[in-house]
Amino acid sequence: MEEVAKEIAQVLSEDAVSFDADVLEHHGRSDWSTSNSQGRSVAVVYPRSTDDVAKIARICNKRKVPMIPFGAGSSVEGNFSQPHSGICIDFAYMDKIVAFHPEDMDVVVQPGVNWVDLNNQIAHAGLFAPLDPSPTATIGGMVSTNCSGTNAMRYGTMKDWVLNLTVVLADGTIIKTRRRPRKNSAGYNLTSLFVGAEGTLGIVTEVCLKLAPIPEDTSVSVVAFPSIRAAADAASKLIRSGIQLAALEIMDEAQMRLLNQHGSETVRKRHWAEQPTLFLKFSGTTEAIKSDVARASKIIKPFAAGNKFHFARSKQDEHDLWAARKEALFTMVSTRPVGTEIWSTDVAVPVSRLPEIIELSKAECGELGIFASVIGHVGDGNFHVAMLYDPKNLEQKQAVARCVRNMMDRALEMEGTVSGEHAIGIGKKECLIDELGEVTVGLMQKLKLAVDPNWVMNPGKVFDLEIDRSR
Amino acid sequence: MEEVAKEIAQVLSEDAVSFDADVLEHHGRSDWSTSNSQGRSVAVVYPRSTDDVAKIARICNKRKVPMIPFGAGSSVEGNFSQPHSGICIDFAYMDKIVAFHPEDMDVVVQPGVNWVDLNNQIAHAGLFAPLDPSPTATIGGMVSTNCSGTNAMRYGTMKDWVLNLTVVLADGTIIKTRRRPRKNSAGYNLTSLFVGAEGTLGIVTEVCLKLAPIPEDTSVSVVAFPSIRAAADAASKLIRSGIQLAALEIMDEAQMRLLNQHGSETVRKRHWAEQPTLFLKFSGTTEAIKSDVARASKIIKPFAAGNKFHFARSKQDEHDLWAARKEALFTMVSTRPVGTEIWSTDVAVPVSRLPEIIELSKAECGELGIFASVIGHVGDGNFHVAMLYDPKNLEQKQAVARCVRNMMDRALEMEGTVSGEHAIGIGKKECLIDELGEVTVGLMQKLKLAVDPNWVMNPGKVFDLEIDRSR
Repeated sequence: MEEVAKEIAQVLSEDAVSFDADVLEHHGRSDWSTSNSQGRSVAVVYPRSTDDVAKIARICNKRKVPMIPFGAGSSVEGNFSQPHSGICIDFAYMDKIVAFHPEDMDVVVQPGVNWVDLNNQIAHAGLFAPLDPSPTATIGGMVSTNCSGTNAMRYGTMKDWVLNLTVVLADGTIIKTRRRPRKNSAGYNLTSLFVGAEGTLGIVTEVCLKLAPIPEDTSVSVVAFPSIRAAADAASKLIRSGIQLAALEIMDEAQMRLLNQHGSETVRKRHWAEQPTLFLKFSGTTEAIKSDVARASKIIKPFAAGNKFHFARSKQDEHDLWAARKEALFTMVSTRPVGTEIWSTDVAVPVSRLPEIIELSKAECGELGIFASVIGHVGDGNFHVAMLYDPKNLEQKQAVARCVRNMMDRALEMEGTVSGEHAIGIGKKECLIDELGEVTVGLMQKLKLAVDPNWVMNPGKVFDLEIDRSR
Repeated sequence: MEEVAKEIAQVLSEDAVSFDADVLEHHGRSDWSTSNSQGRSVAVVYPRSTDDVAKIARICNKRKVPMIPFGAGSSVEGNFSQPHSGICIDFAYMDKIVAFHPEDMDVVVQPGVNWVDLNNQIAHAGLFAPLDPSPTATIGGMVSTNCSGTNAMRYGTMKDWVLNLTVVLADGTIIKTRRRPRKNSAGYNLTSLFVGAEGTLGIVTEVCLKLAPIPEDTSVSVVAFPSIRAAADAASKLIRSGIQLAALEIMDEAQMRLLNQHGSETVRKRHWAEQPTLFLKFSGTTEAIKSDVARASKIIKPFAAGNKFHFARSKQDEHDLWAARKEALFTMVSTRPVGTEIWSTDVAVPVSRLPEIIELSKAECGELGIFASVIGHVGDGNFHVAMLYDPKNLEQKQAVARCVRNMMDRALEMEGTVSGEHAIGIGKKECLIDELGEVTVGLMQKLKLAVDPNWVMNPGKVFDLEIDRSR
């Protein structure tokens, strides 16, 4: 493998390859992830173009050496881990906006572009890419995990915003999946096949994103509930109402308490009720929002047991209310007790089952005697559980793992999925087989083998070459 | 092949197989299609379950006999033609709603369900499937062509509304692509791979569709323009405005004249200006619509050269205005001169290029001296040209074909697609290679070979096994 790295250095340049131990370590694990593997790549390479990536692929494929694409390293299921070592491909220098077409409402970017930067750079044209995963995330990783975030209720997930991809296949072949029209019915939808494939079918080197007009106006409301069940029931009712919410988020009392204790200055401007809370974002014309807020308040009232509906009275107010939701995970990670790690996971279920699964999962992880909380995108039937545990305490670690596993099983019993927005990585490979069965996963393997016969594209993710049929 | 049909009759039942010449003819061509082939299947079979389809597939695959799925026969690119003969699989008896989950806003249906029937049956729950292709279309065909229609501007295309598919593969294996949550990031997006694959990768036998809440209110406005360019320019401006239109349709002066001459009684209640016309549909809350209509009128005014903005004053009025748009194609086909055939085609381009391509295409087909008109979903950068020609007049036929081919080339020069919503069928195989290149189409072939090594699933559609590299 070292020889392969040296060959890449010869073909690209010495500067394009790093063997530095700290660099390798930084690219091999993450504090945010629950699925770090022991393996590390032998080198990190830094391509500057699609052609560079094609050269890297040809060298790796010839020698059957794994290639692992790396974006911001903010994924949580070990999606960029290197269990079989290999060459890590970091897109830090492929961070350019290639072409911006405001009149067509699309933009072509390299995979290393950060989505917050992108949205800042195109805001002047009244357009934005309406995904909002971790603020650190880059477009390549967002494509490969089919990310979403709080905006998904209104705007859908990454797969809905990719018009075409330029992809380097295992043998270095470069393909472009489609052209630029917003509507297309020509041939297989290769775009959607690569979105969410976690780099196991090819390496994304250019992305054409559809953009949305920035809404004329937005507003935020927050309301607390006597129980997580009441909050989830109210959410269910709102979803069915047809009110076009931009986002509908839930945070439990543990999260709300954390905001009062450790929130940013902005967030601690107000004292938050330490109860399960819904955050509602509205968007559209100012008139439509007024009417939507009124309708939503009416629907929520019977569930809120007299709790007041706080709605933003100014843009500053709106920003402050929403900040509480956006800071949640960061606050949790940054204030965790020394020595603890975070286990963060997500599932999604048909929306009617949401109250039940949230209540059951919360009750179970509440019994562990550790910090455990529920937070999530209830508008999509998708929620997260985050637990802080001591990795040295094996009993505790096992209890957390069991609790997560039970949550997966429960989601599957409800015809849900083991991954609403974090993809499979190495953390959920077994669960994927439980979700879809060996025959469907077998079809995925067949497709992968057709394009990556040497199994060198991010191997060990999504599924293994050999499915353990003894399970 | 006849033996295969007899074997199917033995395994299913005698009633499940037809050799009737009229039946074969009906399943082998269509007046709506521009790409009828000479081939006919040897038999039409009528499965009643996924298991029936699996049995058919096993028999056909073993003997390497083509299988061609048939829905309503309303596709236009020869998608259900039988150029290599084989067994036609008609889903007429697989027309049941399997499960309706109003609380989850989804429905599970068999492929033979007609979408208008479906929407009538679920309307009581305030939900609908927001696609609107030909009123005759069935869900299986809609999935396989990735259909859309006038609602796509607001709601997207078929691929955006399929939660999971049950599919029978070439060898009779049955897979389910996903479970039922509205959000999912678990494994490869097989669902989107089968949507739009025209039955060349597998046969869809069950579809779980996401549903949308029926909007609180809708409204329709109609306005005429001095030129097609002015209409298209106004459309471009509207799209960029961020006003959430439900639909934005264009019809040229030829179409409007036809409405005055041959429209239904409803449509002929008013005299239509025989000028290029935009049809706007609004949806949302009554308040939001009022504000949207006002904003849209303001944007359109400078382009309309004093033409009045007609807006519906009642639900009846709204229905009547929209009927004019919906009847257009039907009116054209049903009143065409004896002996003529229709050549209907569509392309889509990045929205800013729409005025130019519409103007050029209209000018070119206007020179042919036959009925030719432009109609389309301008909200998506997608439009249709329809021409009535005499198939016995070879010179005329060639001129029409050249005109269509030029329109494709023009769309490709503008980074558009040769098929916005009708898929490829047999009619646009060459164009697909021009659009994506041999390497990308080669990847599609590789994927097909991986799942259909005998090339028996609807062969001769989308691309051929051997790409003619002399082109």
